[in-house]
Amino acid sequence: MLTQSHLYQEIHSQPAVLENLLRVERANIQRIGATLKQKHITNVFIAARGTSDNAGRYAQYLLGAINRLPVGLATPSLYSIYKQPPIFHDALVIGISQSGASPDIVSVLAAASQQGAVTLALTNEPASPLAQAAQYVIPLHAGAEKSVAATKTYTTQLMALALLSAALADNATMFDALDQVPAHMTRLLEMNDAIARAAERYRYMRVCVVIGRGYNYATAFEMALKIKELTYVLAEPYSSADFMHGPVALVEEAFPTIVVAPSGLMREEMRGFIHTLQARGAEVIVLSDADDLVALARTPLRLPVHVPEWLSPLTTIVPGQLFAMHLANARDYDVDHPRGLRKVTETR
Amino acid sequence: MLTQSHLYQEIHSQPAVLENLLRVERANIQRIGATLKQKHITNVFIAARGTSDNAGRYAQYLLGAINRLPVGLATPSLYSIYKQPPIFHDALVIGISQSGASPDIVSVLAAASQQGAVTLALTNEPASPLAQAAQYVIPLHAGAEKSVAATKTYTTQLMALALLSAALADNATMFDALDQVPAHMTRLLEMNDAIARAAERYRYMRVCVVIGRGYNYATAFEMALKIKELTYVLAEPYSSADFMHGPVALVEEAFPTIVVAPSGLMREEMRGFIHTLQARGAEVIVLSDADDLVALARTPLRLPVHVPEWLSPLTTIVPGQLFAMHLANARDYDVDHPRGLRKVTETR
Repeated sequence: MLTQSHLYQEIHSQPAVLENLLRVERANIQRIGATLKQKHITNVFIAARGTSDNAGRYAQYLLGAINRLPVGLATPSLYSIYKQPPIFHDALVIGISQSGASPDIVSVLAAASQQGAVTLALTNEPASPLAQAAQYVIPLHAGAEKSVAATKTYTTQLMALALLSAALADNATMFDALDQVPAHMTRLLEMNDAIARAAERYRYMRVCVVIGRGYNYATAFEMALKIKELTYVLAEPYSSADFMHGPVALVEEAFPTIVVAPSGLMREEMRGFIHTLQARGAEVIVLSDADDLVALARTPLRLPVHVPEWLSPLTTIVPGQLFAMHLANARDYDVDHPRGLRKVTETR
Repeated sequence: MLTQSHLYQEIHSQPAVLENLLRVERANIQRIGATLKQKHITNVFIAARGTSDNAGRYAQYLLGAINRLPVGLATPSLYSIYKQPPIFHDALVIGISQSGASPDIVSVLAAASQQGAVTLALTNEPASPLAQAAQYVIPLHAGAEKSVAATKTYTTQLMALALLSAALADNATMFDALDQVPAHMTRLLEMNDAIARAAERYRYMRVCVVIGRGYNYATAFEMALKIKELTYVLAEPYSSADFMHGPVALVEEAFPTIVVAPSGLMREEMRGFIHTLQARGAEVIVLSDADDLVALARTPLRLPVHVPEWLSPLTTIVPGQLFAMHLANARDYDVDHPRGLRKVTETR
């Protein structure tokens, strides 16, 4: 039974898990934010893999737009394999990892600490090597994640990053908006049955692309990763801008495209992009809270909540998780045990 | 006739084009390098799209390892659409674009210049908006690129970045090694006929992944982009480490995987990765100058030249370009005019 699976349970536990994180971790994150503001931080680098790297993509836009910090994704092999580590100056180096166990990610934090950079770990395992290598730790309090595909640890990572951004900006309005997220998630989970029906249509889909830009570049990557892990469909994520620089040649009649397009400043860009796809005959799936955008879709996935764009990655990923899970189920795959994956991946 | 196509001609013009760049631009790049060394630069951000973004990925490893600079890829939409630009401090901001015309990339350089950051443009059009927005310009001198798929402008971008790295490091050995690249390219182009034969086997391939890590992360991205643009096969690029964090679930019997694995420090990592793929029944194509690694492949693409790993992206991409071109030809596609693409893509 799908509803008995760890994945189903963990996706549906997210309102409670996020509420717990808000309750137990907000004060610690505010303290860390206040401390970091005393330091001279002018740039941020993030070391992460897989789902956690997608949380890092959210941080690029969030800390970039709200806190005006340029954020780059680190190159772990320069630390772990080449052993020619770049030298951080005035940098905050953030390691993000559910398990905190991957040696390559730990190596970046260890080098950064040794260089005197400010280091922060976001992990579900506060006793992990990653946490030990960092000066500051934000535990995710997500509880054990038994499904191989990460869901609640992703949304807790996003929430922790959003709380950090709010703390650095000392912005009460942001904190208030984040307090509403668990309630939003509960409403988003009501999309479950509609998404189960919608996913059937894609039972025999072989490939697809998932498009988002700006804040939801992260959502496109994370939804594509869930689809790959759970359904073995080659789902490639793209920003709409990067997609136009070459890959749009892929699009032919009926080519499946998933467009993440919530309200906000990116909305008109995504509307134009959907028209471009449709002019080429693509099949378009739209995730949006905007009625006029979902009206353009062959398969509309209408989000029942409106949120500010900067926190929309916390809401748009929920139908993304549900879609990947139901598509795996439609294809008769075991959603808890994707072939060839283990929960903790250690790469050097 | 394939040999009459712009793409074939431009791929085969690369030895001459690179030799020309070395001759006419080396002194300018050395001057720029000497000037930049007088500035207090502690971090680098790169704004680029498509093929040029892949050159940026090379710069992440090259400037990171050789010059010890943390290099991040910028988030153009924060400048062009959200208008909440991150503030650069002690940064070198590099814009890379063949045409120099894409407004989103220009917007990053314009904001960075206004903020007082050091800005550098790499472009084939020295009168372009991108060049005008930058304090320093490295013209690529590649001549008009008539094929939609970029080839010679990519390798000239890599060469310009490698010359910049050598200039910043004041490293004569690097300059000497770069002087050999045109001769290496001539030998690599002798792979043409063998690759034409090898590509036939993949006439009906629907999807594939292209794997590289470290310096050749860039090559994996650029080869995958050429395959997408020219053959419409969904080719997704991955680092071997990221691939293990989820996407490896895609691999089933006969799943086509292209592994870029030249000699160097990453070689043992890639050997282990090839064994992992083979244990799952994948079909493995290997690009390498190492006999023992190509011996593992179902389809070996053996590079006839050995080069230091830091410049191997300049050599490994050549069989990548040839493979994509010959696969497009095997599929009876027009290699000069991929469907739905124009030469200059302007994204906002």
